[in-house]
Amino acid sequence: MKSLKTVEPLLNRLLDIQRINSAASVLSWDQETYMPAGGGTARAEQIATLQGIAHRHLVSSDTERLLGTWLDLQTGLPLEQDGELWDESSHSLLREVWRDYSRAKKLPSEFVMRLSRECSLAQQVWAEARTQNNFKSFLPNLRMVLSLKREEAQYLGFEGTSYNALLDVYEPGSTVDGLRPLFAQLKARLVPLLKRIQQSSVQIDDTFLYHAYDQARQLEFGRLVLIAMGYDFEKGRLDLSAHPFTTSFHPTDVRVTTRVYEHDLPSCLFSCIHEGGHGLYDQGLDPTHYGTPLGEAVSLGIHESQSRLWENCVGRSRAFWRFFYPILQATFHHQLRAVDMEQFYAVINRVKPSLIRVEADELTYNLHIMLRFEIEQDLIEGKANPEELPDIWSHKMKEYLGIVPSLDGDGVLQDVHWSMGAFGYFPTYTLGNLYAVQFYEQAKHEIPHIEEEIAAGQLMVLRRWLGHKIHRWGRMFTPDHLAQRVTGVSLNPEPFLRYIERKYGELYQLDKA
Amino acid sequence: MKSLKTVEPLLNRLLDIQRINSAASVLSWDQETYMPAGGGTARAEQIATLQGIAHRHLVSSDTERLLGTWLDLQTGLPLEQDGELWDESSHSLLREVWRDYSRAKKLPSEFVMRLSRECSLAQQVWAEARTQNNFKSFLPNLRMVLSLKREEAQYLGFEGTSYNALLDVYEPGSTVDGLRPLFAQLKARLVPLLKRIQQSSVQIDDTFLYHAYDQARQLEFGRLVLIAMGYDFEKGRLDLSAHPFTTSFHPTDVRVTTRVYEHDLPSCLFSCIHEGGHGLYDQGLDPTHYGTPLGEAVSLGIHESQSRLWENCVGRSRAFWRFFYPILQATFHHQLRAVDMEQFYAVINRVKPSLIRVEADELTYNLHIMLRFEIEQDLIEGKANPEELPDIWSHKMKEYLGIVPSLDGDGVLQDVHWSMGAFGYFPTYTLGNLYAVQFYEQAKHEIPHIEEEIAAGQLMVLRRWLGHKIHRWGRMFTPDHLAQRVTGVSLNPEPFLRYIERKYGELYQLDKA
Repeated sequence: MKSLKTVEPLLNRLLDIQRINSAASVLSWDQETYMPAGGGTARAEQIATLQGIAHRHLVSSDTERLLGTWLDLQTGLPLEQDGELWDESSHSLLREVWRDYSRAKKLPSEFVMRLSRECSLAQQVWAEARTQNNFKSFLPNLRMVLSLKREEAQYLGFEGTSYNALLDVYEPGSTVDGLRPLFAQLKARLVPLLKRIQQSSVQIDDTFLYHAYDQARQLEFGRLVLIAMGYDFEKGRLDLSAHPFTTSFHPTDVRVTTRVYEHDLPSCLFSCIHEGGHGLYDQGLDPTHYGTPLGEAVSLGIHESQSRLWENCVGRSRAFWRFFYPILQATFHHQLRAVDMEQFYAVINRVKPSLIRVEADELTYNLHIMLRFEIEQDLIEGKANPEELPDIWSHKMKEYLGIVPSLDGDGVLQDVHWSMGAFGYFPTYTLGNLYAVQFYEQAKHEIPHIEEEIAAGQLMVLRRWLGHKIHRWGRMFTPDHLAQRVTGVSLNPEPFLRYIERKYGELYQLDKA
Repeated sequence: MKSLKTVEPLLNRLLDIQRINSAASVLSWDQETYMPAGGGTARAEQIATLQGIAHRHLVSSDTERLLGTWLDLQTGLPLEQDGELWDESSHSLLREVWRDYSRAKKLPSEFVMRLSRECSLAQQVWAEARTQNNFKSFLPNLRMVLSLKREEAQYLGFEGTSYNALLDVYEPGSTVDGLRPLFAQLKARLVPLLKRIQQSSVQIDDTFLYHAYDQARQLEFGRLVLIAMGYDFEKGRLDLSAHPFTTSFHPTDVRVTTRVYEHDLPSCLFSCIHEGGHGLYDQGLDPTHYGTPLGEAVSLGIHESQSRLWENCVGRSRAFWRFFYPILQATFHHQLRAVDMEQFYAVINRVKPSLIRVEADELTYNLHIMLRFEIEQDLIEGKANPEELPDIWSHKMKEYLGIVPSLDGDGVLQDVHWSMGAFGYFPTYTLGNLYAVQFYEQAKHEIPHIEEEIAAGQLMVLRRWLGHKIHRWGRMFTPDHLAQRVTGVSLNPEPFLRYIERKYGELYQLDKA
C-alpha cells in the first residue's frame, strides 16, 4: 500500500511553503501586537512578498511535477498507476493538497501579493478608523478590498452566487443555499425565544460586572484558566491586541491574544477562554504533520466550535464556576464578596440585545452573524453600496436586535474581518456555535462524569477527548465527515437549539410564564 | 549620466530580497524577545528557509542577468558600454551589490540554510547553558558552528589566514595584519595606564550603584534618554532580552532591547544609550534606499562607533549628566540623594578590571576584545581546542585583566556571538571605540558649543550632525572613505588614546602621582 513515505518529496516541498507561510504569520502577529505604528507600510510589503513567494512555490512547475506524479492535475483524481492503493492518510493528504493547489492555481501570484498588501494596509487604517469612530476614513480601503475580493471570486469560479467562492475558502463545501435554511431555522426558534425572555419577569442586574477590576489581575486570572484548560505556555503566549485572536506558527508556538478593560470583567475573561479553545486546537495538531494539510485545522467552523465549546458550553456553565468562582471571588474580593455563584452564573448568561458581537450572549450572537452574512453577500454581489454601510447596519440592527449604534466603532467598524478581506468568514461563527454543542453533547454522552470533572477543575479530561476526537486529525477528514465520525451525524442545529432553550428556559423561568 | 533610474529592475529585485531578509530579522527578534521556549526548533527551520530563499534569489540567473548587464560578474568592474558615466550613487550601488553578490555566489544555498539553522539552534542552547553556567552543554553546538564557519571561510577564500575571510564580512577590508599592530598600539598605551590607575591613591566607591533600583523606573528612565536622543518610538520599540541588541526591519521599524537588574543601575542605563546609538543609525538610513546597499549600514565598526559615541563620549560625560543627573536623582531619590553629580560621574567612569565585557569601563573594554580576537583566531585556525576554552579564557583573563571567572556564564559563555556564528565580529567593537572618539572630536570641532547643548539636554544637535555626516549615506562610501570624508583622515587610534589618557588622568589625578 502506498503511504506518506511515497510522497516524501512532495511533503518536503510543502514543508518549505508552510515555513514561509508561518513566517508571514509571525509578521502579522507582530503587526497586531508590538509593531510600532510607523512600520506598517513596510510590513505590508514584507508580508505580501512572503505570500507571493509561498504562492509561486505552490503553483510552480516543481510542485506540479511532484503532484502530477500521482494525481490528474485537472481533476484531482488519483492516477491509475500500478494498482497499489493509497493508505487513508495519503489519500486524504493528496485530496487536500490538490484542493489548495487548484485554488492557488486559479490566482495570479501578482494578485495574491496585491490582495495581501491591500489587506494589511486596510487593517491598519481600520484600526485607526475604529478608534476614531470614523467609517468614512476607512471607506476607500474597504472599496479597494471589496473590489479585490470580487476579483478573487471571479478567478476562483463558483456556482450560483460569487459569494459562494469565498465561503468555500473558510468552510469547504458550504454555500449560500446550504446556509440560508440553517439560518432561517435558527431565526424561527431564536427570535420568539428572545421575545419570551424579554417579557420574562426575571430581571438580571449585571452592573457589578462593570465596576473597576484591576487589569493585571484580570490578565492573571485569564492566564490561570488557560493553564487549567491545558494551554501550554511552553508552546504559547498570551498578549494584548485590539481584537483578540489566535495564530499558530507551529504546534510548538501557538499564540493567543486578549484585551483588558478595567470596567468590563467579561471581556478579558471570556476572550481568554475563547482564544484558549482555538489555541488548544492548534497546539493539538500533530507536529509530525506540520507543513501538510494533515497538520492543519480542518475548517474555520470546526475551529470556532472549539473556542465556543470552551467559552460557552464550559465557560458559561455552573460546573465550571463551581470550581473557578471561589478563585475569582478571592481575586476580586472587594467587588464580588456580596455576589454568590448563582448570581454570577445568571449575569454571565444574561440575554440582552447588545451592539458588540463578541460580547453578545449565546442567543443573540447568531443574530449578529445573520446580519453580517446578509450584508457581506450584498456587498460582494454589488447589491449594497459600501458608502451606505452605516445606514444598512443600523437598519438591520433595528430589525434583528431592536437597537442601533450611535458610533461607527460600535457598529460597522467593530470587526476586523472585512478589513482583512475575510468576506465569507462570519457564517463559520454560527457553524462553530452549532458544532460546539453537538460535540459537547457527545462528550457528555461518552464521559458521563465530565461535568463533575469540570466542577473539580479537571478540564484536561475534556481537552484530551477533543484532542483525541478532533485536534489530532488535522484535515484528514472533511468537516462533515469529521462531524459524522465524532457524533454519528452531520451538522445538526437541534442540539444547539435544545441547549439554548433549556438553558434560558431555566434561567428566565419560561415554563412558569 | 547613468543613474539609479537606469538600474531600476535590479533595485526591484534587491527590494524583494531585502524584504525576505527583513522578515527573517523579525523572526530572530521574536526569538530573542517573546518566542515561547518550545518554539525554537521550528523557528530555526523557518529562519533557515527564508535565508535560503534570499540567498537563492541573490545568486539566481535573474539577478545575474540584471547585474551582468552593467558589470563583469567575475571582477565587479563596470562594462564599457556606451561611454556614458555612472553617477556617484549608482557607482557605489553597483560596487556594493557586487560585493554582496560575489560573496553569496561562493556559498551554496544548502550551506547558507544549514549555517542559519545550526546558529539559531546553537543560540538557544547557548542561552540555556549560560543560565546554567554549563559550558559543556554548549560544546557540541559550538563545535558544529565552528566547523561550519571554517567551511564558510574555505568557500569565501582568503589571503593569509582563513580568519580574514570572516573579518571581511563584518568590516570590509579589515585583516589580521591590519588589526594586530592596532591592538599592539592600544595595548602598549592602555596596559601601563591601567597600572598607573590601579596604583593611584584615588579610590572610587561604587557600591551605591548596586543597591536596589525599581526595575520599571529604570526602564522608564532608559526610555526617557532614548527619546531625548531622538530615537523615534513611532518607528521603534524598547524590549527586554537576555543580551541587549538592535535590529531593523526598515528605517520605520527599528527595535532596541535592554535588560534590567534590580541591583545593577548601570546595566539598563548604559545598554539603553548604547543600543539607542545603534538605533539612531538604523532610523537615520534613507528609507528611499531600503532594499539597496545605499540603505544599509556601512560596517559593524562604524555601527559600533555610533553606539559607543553615545554610550561613552556622551553618556559618560559631565555635560550629559549635568542635564540628566537631577532627573535620575529625582527618579531614585532614596538611593541617590546623598550622591552629588561629581561622585556619580566618577563611579560611572571607575576603571576596574571586571569579568563582563559589556559592563567594562572604556579602558579595559579593549582588553576584553583583544582576548576574544586572539581566541577566535585560534579557534578558526584550529590552533585551540574548543573543549579547553574555559581554561584558555581564564588564562588570558589572568594575563590581560588579572582576574578569572569562577562561572562559565561570567566567562566564556557571556557573549552570544560565537553561538550566532559571528566569528570575526569582536574586533569591530574596538574599531567602533576608536571611530567613536575620532567622530566625536570632529563634531566638537565643527560645533564648538556641542557640550553646552548636551548639558542643556539638547541631544538632537549631535544626532542631526551624525545623521548628516554618517547615517544617511548608507554604504555609499567604504568605511575608510567615510572616515576620511567626516574627519579628514583614516582610522586613527590617537584621538581615542588621548581622550582616554586625559579623561582618566584627570579622574585618577595621575599627573599628581
